[in-house]
Formats: sequence, C-alpha cells, structure tokens
Amino acid sequence: MDINNLVKRIVAADKLSISRAISMIENNSPDSDNLLDGIHKYVGRALRIGVTGPPGVGKSTIVNELIAALRKRDKRVGVIAVDPSSIFCGGAILGDRIRMQKIGVDNGVFIRSMATRGCSGGLSRATVETADIIEASGKDYIIIETVGVGQSEVEIFRSVDAVVLVLSPESGDAIQAMKAGIMEIADVIVVNKADRPGLDAFVTNLKNTLELARPQSVPHLCGSSKAKIPVLTAQANAGIGIAELLDTLEKYLSGLKESGKLAQRRRDVLRERIKTHILTRLEEHLLSDKKITKLVDNEIGKAGATPGKIAQKALRVLINRKTRKVLIPSKKRGRGV
Amino acid sequence: MDINNLVKRIVAADKLSISRAISMIENNSPDSDNLLDGIHKYVGRALRIGVTGPPGVGKSTIVNELIAALRKRDKRVGVIAVDPSSIFCGGAILGDRIRMQKIGVDNGVFIRSMATRGCSGGLSRATVETADIIEASGKDYIIIETVGVGQSEVEIFRSVDAVVLVLSPESGDAIQAMKAGIMEIADVIVVNKADRPGLDAFVTNLKNTLELARPQSVPHLCGSSKAKIPVLTAQANAGIGIAELLDTLEKYLSGLKESGKLAQRRRDVLRERIKTHILTRLEEHLLSDKKITKLVDNEIGKAGATPGKIAQKALRVLINRKTRKVLIPSKKRGRGV
Repeated sequence: MDINNLVKRIVAADKLSISRAISMIENNSPDSDNLLDGIHKYVGRALRIGVTGPPGVGKSTIVNELIAALRKRDKRVGVIAVDPSSIFCGGAILGDRIRMQKIGVDNGVFIRSMATRGCSGGLSRATVETADIIEASGKDYIIIETVGVGQSEVEIFRSVDAVVLVLSPESGDAIQAMKAGIMEIADVIVVNKADRPGLDAFVTNLKNTLELARPQSVPHLCGSSKAKIPVLTAQANAGIGIAELLDTLEKYLSGLKESGKLAQRRRDVLRERIKTHILTRLEEHLLSDKKITKLVDNEIGKAGATPGKIAQKALRVLINRKTRKVLIPSKKRGRGV
Repeated sequence: MDINNLVKRIVAADKLSISRAISMIENNSPDSDNLLDGIHKYVGRALRIGVTGPPGVGKSTIVNELIAALRKRDKRVGVIAVDPSSIFCGGAILGDRIRMQKIGVDNGVFIRSMATRGCSGGLSRATVETADIIEASGKDYIIIETVGVGQSEVEIFRSVDAVVLVLSPESGDAIQAMKAGIMEIADVIVVNKADRPGLDAFVTNLKNTLELARPQSVPHLCGSSKAKIPVLTAQANAGIGIAELLDTLEKYLSGLKESGKLAQRRRDVLRERIKTHILTRLEEHLLSDKKITKLVDNEIGKAGATPGKIAQKALRVLINRKTRKVLIPSKKRGRGV
C-alpha cells in the first residue's frame, strides 16, 4: 500500500491500518519518515497524559476507568502501554489484546502496548511517534501508561502534557516514591485503593513529603513550578474518584493552555524531537559509512589512538569545514563547548 | 592541577585524585577527553565483571566477598556500584562511604557509586569511563554492580567481559528473571542464600528454564553462544561458594582470552565507544550552534514543516557535501539506509 493511502486510512480510524503504521514505526521502516510527514497535519490537537506509579497500585484499572469516563464525555481515546523494563522486542505483550476485547467494537478507543527495542533512546522516540499515529486517527486524548518507574519513564513523559502518578496506601512510605524520583515529574497524584487501611495517614504523610520535597523554586517537568500538586483519592475498581481525576486533569490542562505554557512545552518537545531525528540519522550513517568504518578499524589498536582521538578523525570525514572549525578546535581543548 | 599531573597521581593510586578524576567524568568536564587520553595507555589489562540480580538476593555481600577473595589472591580491585533507577545526579549515594570504611586503608581496593545522570545513554558512558580511571590506578579487576535489572543494566554490561547474575531461592520463579530479560546477558549464575529452603527445587527449575530459554543458536551478549551457562550456589554471608565463583569466572575469562573472543569483544566495545563519542560531540554542537538553533526555531510551526523535514534542513548545515549526498537523498526515500 502506498503511504498516501495508508495515511488516508489512518485518518479514517481504520484499526488495522493504525496497527500496521505503528509496526512500521517500531521496526524503523524506511517509510516511517514519509508516514510521519504524511500524518503531521492531523497531529497537535489531542491532549497527552502520562500515567505511572509503582507496580500493584492499580494503574491499568485507573486507565480503563479513565477511558470509560472520557467516552462518556464523548471524547475519543488512544492508549499506549509501555514496558521499559522488558528487553523483548516490539509488539503487543501487555495484555492489550484482552483489553481490546473488552473495549470491543468501540471505534473511539485504540490500545497498543510497546516494549523496549534494541537501541538506546529508541523507546521514547517510538512512543511519541506511535502517539502521533494514534492521534491522527482522530483521538482527543492519548494516555501513555508505563509499568514501572525509572529513568526511561522520565524520558517518555518528557513528551506528554500532564503526568499522573498513581500510588496506594499499600505502596509504602511516600519517601520511597521520592527516592525513585517520580514525585518530581508528577502533575497530579492519585491515591488509589482508598478503601484500604491507612489512607488518611498515607495522604497526610504524602502531602508533608511534597511540601518538603517540592519547594516553590524547584521547577518540574510539566507545568508551573509554583503550582501546588493536587492529591486526589480514588477507588478505581468501583469507579470512585475517576470523574474528579478527569476534572482535575482538564482544569490543569486548560490552565496550561491559557497561560501559553502548553504551546511553549510543545515547542520544546518538538525541538527535542528534531534533535533526536538528526542524531538518529547521523548514527545510522556512522554505522553504514564504509570510509568511517575503515578509518575507525585502522586506528583501533594504534599506539596513542584513544577513543576521543579516533572520534575526532571520524568527525573530520563526517562534518563540513565550517562546522569542523567549531567542533574540532585546533588546540587541545577537551570535549564540547 | 594540570592533567599530566593528575594522570600521574591516578597511576600512583592516589585515592583523592581518582575520586577527583571520576567527578570530572561525571560532570562532563571540558578536560575529560584530555584526562581519558592521558590514562589510555594504562587501560586494557584489567578484567571487568558485571554483577546484577533482583533486589534482596545479596549482590553487595557477594561483591564484598569477591573483593576479599581477590585480595587474598593478591589482586587489586575496583568496584563501581551503579543505580540506574535513581534520577538523582552523580556522587556517592549507595553507602559506598560505609563500605570504604570497612575496606579501611587497603590501597588495593577502590569503591565508587554512580547514579543516573541527566542525559540518555550518559550512565553507561560515565560508567565505562569511570572504570578506565579506576583501572589506570593499577587494578586487576573492575567489578560493576547494579542495583536493579533492566534495559540500563543491559547497556552498562555491554562493556564488561563477564556478567554474573545473582539469584536466591526466595527471588521467585526463574520465569520471573527470564521475563526481565536478564538470563540472556548472564555468563555465570550464582544462587545465593543457599541455606534457605527450596534451594534444590529452585536450581532444578532454573536449569530447566535455561535449557528451554537458551537454545544453542541464541547468541548472548558475552562469551560463546554455545557454552552452557554455569549455575553455582553460594552462601555469601558465611563466605561459602565465593572461591568457586571466582574460579569459575577466571576459567570463563581465560577461555575467552585463549579463543580470541575477549580481544574481539573489546574491539566491538571500543567501536561502540567511538560511535558514542562522535554522537555526543555532535549533540553538544547541535545544542550550541546558533545557526542550527535559529533555523529550527524559524521552521517550527510553518505549514508542512514536519520534524523530519526540519531535521534534514539542519543536517545540510551540519555535514559536508559528500556525506550529505549519502545521508540526504535527493528523492524522498525515508529514513536511513
């Protein structure tokens, strides 16, 4: 199928075509760039929400209920479930088939899961590009759900508009969440399983930790550094607290919009994507350029040929004269700027 | 202090100078490249061992006992404890101060811990460069210990000569370790806490899983794809099984050496380091080049200006004419090769 045709079918929300396009992104197909160029004008309106938290707090239940709540408000939803801890390659592994069955024939919902692919930095790129594909099929919200909490999540969430951190009274001391660094990237916190014992103490403890940990001067990833982070409670498996969560999110997002911060954030995300794009291209080229490969192989093992010096020689072959002047100083000046 | 002087002090195993040099690496100091060039000729002889496993299996105890066993054999040891799950910046956070106190004034041991730094891919680069610094101070073994199991660990362990996976009868079904993908990168498995109930069943189950999961045709990261992975037992807190672990490791490593596979592996690692070096340079340049920054900012928001198209324009500014021809096809051909 040609790319224009595929783009048309994606825009028409054809699930098979969306899946096919995502596989192209995952496999880094030669046509990916044309595909992304093709859908570009259908992307930019949807709100993107990240959902994270430690294992066992009920993230999937929260997400499932959010889908239902959004559908009730007549919003179309795309969901990407990401598992950065897995080193298995691409494809649907997180039980999204089961979840898709539950959703049934509702064309207003599309769910896809992704696992880490081979290359470093590949997962966040693939995730954001997959979000583009799904958004182009006419979704109003894209929810990106991750299974763990770590550096990969932080990277993935750099591209979203708001991050929801899910905790439960059983997920242990709030200090633990702090230690993992997740508090710093959250815009809204939901304490799920609110029926479990210890809720009040947990919430109090959490709020105290937040006061201590997020002084007004510390900027966080999304939104304003001065905003107090909302702490909600929920009992997702009974549908309790979901409407409030959605209201809070919509209020937060419309605040970002009105202040111009959403537009600013998205410009930053775009800049980062362009940079990644350039570097990916250069990396692919480095791996395939015979002249550079030969040069590196010849240099390795020579006396005094350090990785840094070999890299400089390769850069001479790669970049143009003007850039070279800036990038490779004639005198020894060490790395970078 | 000038770099030549610092190199001399590192080679003389001055702990303060080693720490200072590592901080330079962590902070990506402008002098890092000169420093790494300076120590280059003192690097390449030590054996590098990665130690990983789920939380609570006793990795630190194993590592501490390995240090003691190596010291008994008159080997000098460097240890790097890596925590990829933390997003806190650099520095000593994993209790290495306490461990250092225990080691006391033994100049044959140096311990340092590292946490994830801001940039993607930064941790494995910083880890391998830190290993270089420590090795230049005259160590025979470098042990790299990680706290978790995930994609970051896999990347960090790409640079080592052998990977030890630590499990315990309590660490749950072997399938769990499989799921995390860690079996694939292990060269030696140690079941620690061998005094706990369920040892025999655990080991049997583990061996069966290994047979199923690692058919002879699947290559793994380190060593031969045909080698059967050794499964040892240990009770590290009583010092039991450590000598056997060390013997197994030395046998494994001398096998790699004799077959020429160690040299081949290290060439591959060096190639990867050079590539990373080039890309890091280019990334730094992208962030600081005013012409490219301005171009990107002007393009963002223009109709039809997709990330891919903007990236191509920026590449034109960055690379030379010859490379440009290869990298940016005149006809639309999508990404890369």
